[in-house]
Amino acid sequence: MNIRPTAVLVLTAMFVVAAASMANDAYGAPPAARKLPARTVPIPSTVSTEMQALIGTPLSADWNLHPKSAAQWKALVAQSTATSSAAIPALLKKLDVTREKTMIAGVTVFIMTPKTLPPENANRLLVHIHGGAYVFFPGESGNSEAILMAAYSHMKVLSIDYRMPPDFPYPAALDDVMSVWRTLLETHDPKTMALFGTSTGGGMTLAATLRAMQEHLALPAAIAPGTPWSDLTKTGDSYFANQMLDNVLVGYDGVLSGAAKLYANGHDLKDPLLSPVYGDFHGFPPTFLTTGTRDLFLSNTVRVHRKLREAGVEAQLNVFEGQSHAQYLFNEDAPETKAAFGEIAQFFDAHLSR
Amino acid sequence: MNIRPTAVLVLTAMFVVAAASMANDAYGAPPAARKLPARTVPIPSTVSTEMQALIGTPLSADWNLHPKSAAQWKALVAQSTATSSAAIPALLKKLDVTREKTMIAGVTVFIMTPKTLPPENANRLLVHIHGGAYVFFPGESGNSEAILMAAYSHMKVLSIDYRMPPDFPYPAALDDVMSVWRTLLETHDPKTMALFGTSTGGGMTLAATLRAMQEHLALPAAIAPGTPWSDLTKTGDSYFANQMLDNVLVGYDGVLSGAAKLYANGHDLKDPLLSPVYGDFHGFPPTFLTTGTRDLFLSNTVRVHRKLREAGVEAQLNVFEGQSHAQYLFNEDAPETKAAFGEIAQFFDAHLSR
Repeated sequence: MNIRPTAVLVLTAMFVVAAASMANDAYGAPPAARKLPARTVPIPSTVSTEMQALIGTPLSADWNLHPKSAAQWKALVAQSTATSSAAIPALLKKLDVTREKTMIAGVTVFIMTPKTLPPENANRLLVHIHGGAYVFFPGESGNSEAILMAAYSHMKVLSIDYRMPPDFPYPAALDDVMSVWRTLLETHDPKTMALFGTSTGGGMTLAATLRAMQEHLALPAAIAPGTPWSDLTKTGDSYFANQMLDNVLVGYDGVLSGAAKLYANGHDLKDPLLSPVYGDFHGFPPTFLTTGTRDLFLSNTVRVHRKLREAGVEAQLNVFEGQSHAQYLFNEDAPETKAAFGEIAQFFDAHLSR
Repeated sequence: MNIRPTAVLVLTAMFVVAAASMANDAYGAPPAARKLPARTVPIPSTVSTEMQALIGTPLSADWNLHPKSAAQWKALVAQSTATSSAAIPALLKKLDVTREKTMIAGVTVFIMTPKTLPPENANRLLVHIHGGAYVFFPGESGNSEAILMAAYSHMKVLSIDYRMPPDFPYPAALDDVMSVWRTLLETHDPKTMALFGTSTGGGMTLAATLRAMQEHLALPAAIAPGTPWSDLTKTGDSYFANQMLDNVLVGYDGVLSGAAKLYANGHDLKDPLLSPVYGDFHGFPPTFLTTGTRDLFLSNTVRVHRKLREAGVEAQLNVFEGQSHAQYLFNEDAPETKAAFGEIAQFFDAHLSR
């Protein structure tokens, strides 16, 4: 074996401090982007068979769609809505959850009640904000995460059917969430309530908490943003590192970037109420974050976690092996789905008053 | 825009449950490995300039070395040891840490004392197991992490200079750690002690805890395995997904795989005392885990985190944006280094008696 000096330097760099300056000495080059060769990443053996099926699903061939008009967006959303809505009644039945549709402060909401509602949860309410890139899953098509949470937490869940673009861009969605929250505060002790949601629902969970602080409203006792879309701009390492590896979102430059602009409607994408990672998290309630190692939003999640911790907030991070974006929501029978909701339920149970 | 049915199916799959069976229907193919095209991943803008320098360092050209004899291993280690040791005195001086070298139960240990040692930490002791793939960093060359911890936690740190292959393969290293631990228990309340280390030191932190349980010894009050080498086999998604992205370890099939075999010396690599992810974590003390989004050992870390949580153990996970393996140790001035040690120190402070 030819032991070259660079080998020693690099191995040493594994654990010696001040490697940065040393590395510059050793390589004589400024920091550079990483060039990765083409490669094949196998399905991990370290997840359930249900999760293997999800991880092994091919990339969406259509993540790079660019609807060019309100009509094209609506057509795309309408077809997705029909397919998603069709699955909801069976899910309610399978998981023994009953649903009531009503209005609060002019906003449609769905209230999910699990068959088993133990006395300690009778006064608790989990407020849900659905995901879907700010354009997808209106009406009952956005119900699935709320149903899963009701079933696995044995708590009541209220899901907000907020307005969306193209007809109602920012701040309509957040206005609706705040209207519901303000009204709920009239009849509920905030210490008995939590706020949660995934993806766009996670970003809005953070944004709604920031806005509640701005408006001096009482905050929920705990929040659980799942893989939150915390940065609507293409900023953060996993937008690049996990591109084409995440088979759900695949990349930023297609539907996602279009949806961000459609929602923002000319507002600064880095406004903390649109991209909450740029907000001030001091004073936030205890926060539980969930993501996956292949998630395009891995950085969106861990950046929020670090910022919360730096602000002194109690924050727990849960990263699932091999999962792409939000795959803990996709199969109600997967052990990882039960684990994800079980962890959040336990966190809420620890932080919500009875 | 041509709205194809597959687009609707895929977008729907983002949030509808039972997507696994649907995906099989839609694509008509069994789960498959992900084929990634060649690409360039830029240096993230979301980390400090110090961390950008580390992240931008080129891949080791030599991660794929394969020493073929004990003499070749020793030559490789010797050169790395000389370089690493040379940096230690300056680090001690810079961080105002004093060091004492002594023996406990026949094992060399280094005791690091920070200049500021507040009264509440006077009786506390953090026991450190250094990293280095089970072969690197003997003697003072393995001191850097212990020095950083002493400086940033303001606690006393005892670092174990355990025996290593090629002369002393498994279980010598673990035997040494257990000998020190057993002897420390004669004079120290275990509630005032913690165990920590990074990479191999993280794996051994977990293995030593498993063995302490087997031997019915008292456990430390808390442990902090940093990006632990919890699986010595090439099992876990990030061994594949982060290959060539992690610029510190780069890949499993070179020095790492050789070192694993050298250490195991014929023992089963999946024995829980070699690959602790296969161990039973019920009864573990509170555990703090650290890793990075580009870390080859990201899966080694999150798999342990999930298993701890499934065993009902209090476990905190900290994932740093953009970092490859153990880069929170490389530059004592980086804000991320201070954050990493600050988090662990806070965790130890919350869990150790005074």
